[in-house]
Amino acid sequence: MVGAGQLARMTHQAAISLGQSLRILAASPDDGAALVAADVHVGHHTDLAALRAFAKGCDVVTWDHEHVPSPHVEALAAEGVRVAPGAAALRYAQDKRAMRERLAELGVPIPRWAPGEHLTAFGDEVGWPVVVKAVRGGYDGRGVWVVDRTDPVPDTELMVEERVRLRRELSALVARSPFGQLAAYPVVETVQRDGICVEVLAPAPGLADGRAVEAQRLALRLATELDVVGLLAVELFETEDGSLLVNELAMRPHNSGHWTIEGARTSQFEQHLRAVLDYPLGDTTATAPAVVMANVLGGEPGGISFDERVHHLFATDPGVKVHLYGKQVRPGRKIGHVTALGEDMAEVRQRARRAARWLQEGR
Amino acid sequence: MVGAGQLARMTHQAAISLGQSLRILAASPDDGAALVAADVHVGHHTDLAALRAFAKGCDVVTWDHEHVPSPHVEALAAEGVRVAPGAAALRYAQDKRAMRERLAELGVPIPRWAPGEHLTAFGDEVGWPVVVKAVRGGYDGRGVWVVDRTDPVPDTELMVEERVRLRRELSALVARSPFGQLAAYPVVETVQRDGICVEVLAPAPGLADGRAVEAQRLALRLATELDVVGLLAVELFETEDGSLLVNELAMRPHNSGHWTIEGARTSQFEQHLRAVLDYPLGDTTATAPAVVMANVLGGEPGGISFDERVHHLFATDPGVKVHLYGKQVRPGRKIGHVTALGEDMAEVRQRARRAARWLQEGR
Repeated sequence: MVGAGQLARMTHQAAISLGQSLRILAASPDDGAALVAADVHVGHHTDLAALRAFAKGCDVVTWDHEHVPSPHVEALAAEGVRVAPGAAALRYAQDKRAMRERLAELGVPIPRWAPGEHLTAFGDEVGWPVVVKAVRGGYDGRGVWVVDRTDPVPDTELMVEERVRLRRELSALVARSPFGQLAAYPVVETVQRDGICVEVLAPAPGLADGRAVEAQRLALRLATELDVVGLLAVELFETEDGSLLVNELAMRPHNSGHWTIEGARTSQFEQHLRAVLDYPLGDTTATAPAVVMANVLGGEPGGISFDERVHHLFATDPGVKVHLYGKQVRPGRKIGHVTALGEDMAEVRQRARRAARWLQEGR
Repeated sequence: MVGAGQLARMTHQAAISLGQSLRILAASPDDGAALVAADVHVGHHTDLAALRAFAKGCDVVTWDHEHVPSPHVEALAAEGVRVAPGAAALRYAQDKRAMRERLAELGVPIPRWAPGEHLTAFGDEVGWPVVVKAVRGGYDGRGVWVVDRTDPVPDTELMVEERVRLRRELSALVARSPFGQLAAYPVVETVQRDGICVEVLAPAPGLADGRAVEAQRLALRLATELDVVGLLAVELFETEDGSLLVNELAMRPHNSGHWTIEGARTSQFEQHLRAVLDYPLGDTTATAPAVVMANVLGGEPGGISFDERVHHLFATDPGVKVHLYGKQVRPGRKIGHVTALGEDMAEVRQRARRAARWLQEGR
C-alpha cells in the first residue's frame, strides 16, 4: 500500500488476519502505519524510483490516498506491476473535473458545474455564492471554498459548482474485485463540520429503502463503469426534495466506512484487501441495528493528558471502541475515531459523540 | 510481549487500535508476530540478557506463553521492570504441582492427584489408567499421557491425576487489572481432539445459568487470590454429575478466547492490554447469540494450495472470519482459526467446522 496514514494502518490490521504481510511506502518513518508494520519502505509517492523499488516483489500495489501521479501508476502497470485500482479508474478520484465529465456522460445525477474559467458566468447563472473546488489534491475540507461574486479565488486549476440545498450527506461504499464481483455496504449518513467528516451514522437514519437501494445501485454501477478494483466510496448529497447527487468519489478505504470494523461482518479494510487480491468478497451485513463512528480531532493543547482521557473514557463507557492513529495531536487533525454500537440510534450517537468529545477536549 | 506466536500476533493487532506499539521478543524473525510487528527484538526467552535489553523502555512486560523461567521474571521485577502478571502469579500457570497445591489450599475443586513419585500407589487407589502430566512445559496435548499400571513413564518431573469421567470441558476467561478491576467473559465449551482444542462454542450450550455463574465466580476468585494481572483462563471439567473441577490455568490470551475477536464487544487481546496497562476493562458482552471458533491445523501436504483453499472458503461462506498466523504448514500444527457467528448454535458450528476442515484438508 502506497501511503502510510491511518488507512494503511488499519489495512495492516486486517492484512494480519488474512495471513498477508502488507508492505507500506511511507513518506516518513513516523507515519501512523509505519509505526506498526514490519515491512516499511521510506520514500515519497511522487518519486517513481521509490515506487518502483517498493513495488518489487509485491503481489499487488494499492493506495492509501489519491496523490500518486497518474503517469507513475501507468509506468508501474506498464512494467508488469499489478496495480489496483489502475490509473484509468484512479483518474476519477484524482481529478474532479474528469470525474464530473465522466459522470455526466454516464447520465449520473451531479450538481450543476463548470470549469473554473467560467466562474463568473456560471455564478451569474446559478446564483451566488457558489462552491469552488481545486481540481486536484483537496481533502478534509481543503481545496473547497464557498465564493461570492467579488471574492478572490486561489491560483490553481479550479472547477465551480452550484451550492446544493441539501438535507444531508450520504455515503455509499461498495467493493469490486478484478473478477467483477460486487458487494455493497449499508448506506450511511455522514455529518460534516467545517468540511471535515465528524460523524457517520449507519445505517442512514430514516432513509427510505428505495433510496438506499438507489444509492447502492448507483455506486455499484460506477464501480463497474469506471473499472474500479477495491473499494469505491460514493459521497452523495441528499437534496431537499430527496433526490441524490454524486459529490465525490474515493477509491480506497474511506472515513465513511470506519464503522465497519466492528459494525459490519467484514470490515472495509478486509474487503479492500479481498478485492485487490481477487479473493471473493466478504459479508457486508451490519452487526448491530445502530452503529455510529465519530472522528477524534486533535484539540487545543492543555488539560489532562491524552492517556488520562482514554483512561477516563474507558471507565465511563466500557463498550465504546477506540482507534488511535499514532499521530501527534494537532488542533483539527484526525488523530483517531471511536465507534459505538447498539439498538437505538439516538442513544448510540450520544455515546459516540460523548466519547469523541472526551478524547478531544478532555471534558 | 515476550514470545512471538499467534497470541502476540493478535495482541499486536489489538494494540494498534489502542495507539500502542507492541514490542515483541521473538525467538526467530520468522515467528508469526515478528512477521507483522514494527518493534521486534530477536532473542530467547530463557536468556536473561536478552530479556533485559528487550524490557528497557517498555511500560510493562507481559507474556505470550508460560516458558520464561521464574527467576528471570523475578530479576526483571527486582530491577524495576513492571511485569504483568508477576512471577508469584505466573508460577501457578507454569508449575502444575504448585497450582494443584495452591488450589487445594483455597478449597477449589480439582481432580484427585498426587506427585509423580506416588504414581503406583495413587493408581492402585483411584483406579487405572491415570493421567500423568509433566509438571512444566506441556501444551496442546504435549506433556500429558494416559498411563496404565505397567506403562513406562517419561523421565521428567511428573504429577498424576485421576481420569475424570467428564461430560465435557469448559473454559472461564476473566481479566484483572492492577487496580483490582475484574471482568468475566461468557463461559464457553471447548472441544478437544488428541489433547488439542479444536472447537470453542460460546456460550457453552445448555449450561445452566447457575453453573455458568459458578464458573465465572471461581475464575474471578482465582484471579484475585493468585494476584493475576491480565487475563486468566480457567480450564474446567464438567463431570458426569454436572460439577466443575479445575483442570488448567493460563495467564495470557488463550485459545478458548479467540472467539471474542468478533464475538465479544472487547476482544481478549484488547482486554489483556487494557489490564496490563491498567486501563479500565472493556465490555465482555457477546455480539451474537452463538459464536463458534474452530482451530485450523496443518493438514497433510498435497492437494490444492492453501491460498486456493482460502479462495474457495470465501466463495462458499462470505461471513466466516479467518485468522491466519503466518506459520509454515505442518501436520497437526495450529496455523490459524476461523470464527462463525449467528443465531443458531448448531448451524454456526456446522459453518465453523466446514470452514476449518476446508482450510485443513482442501475438501
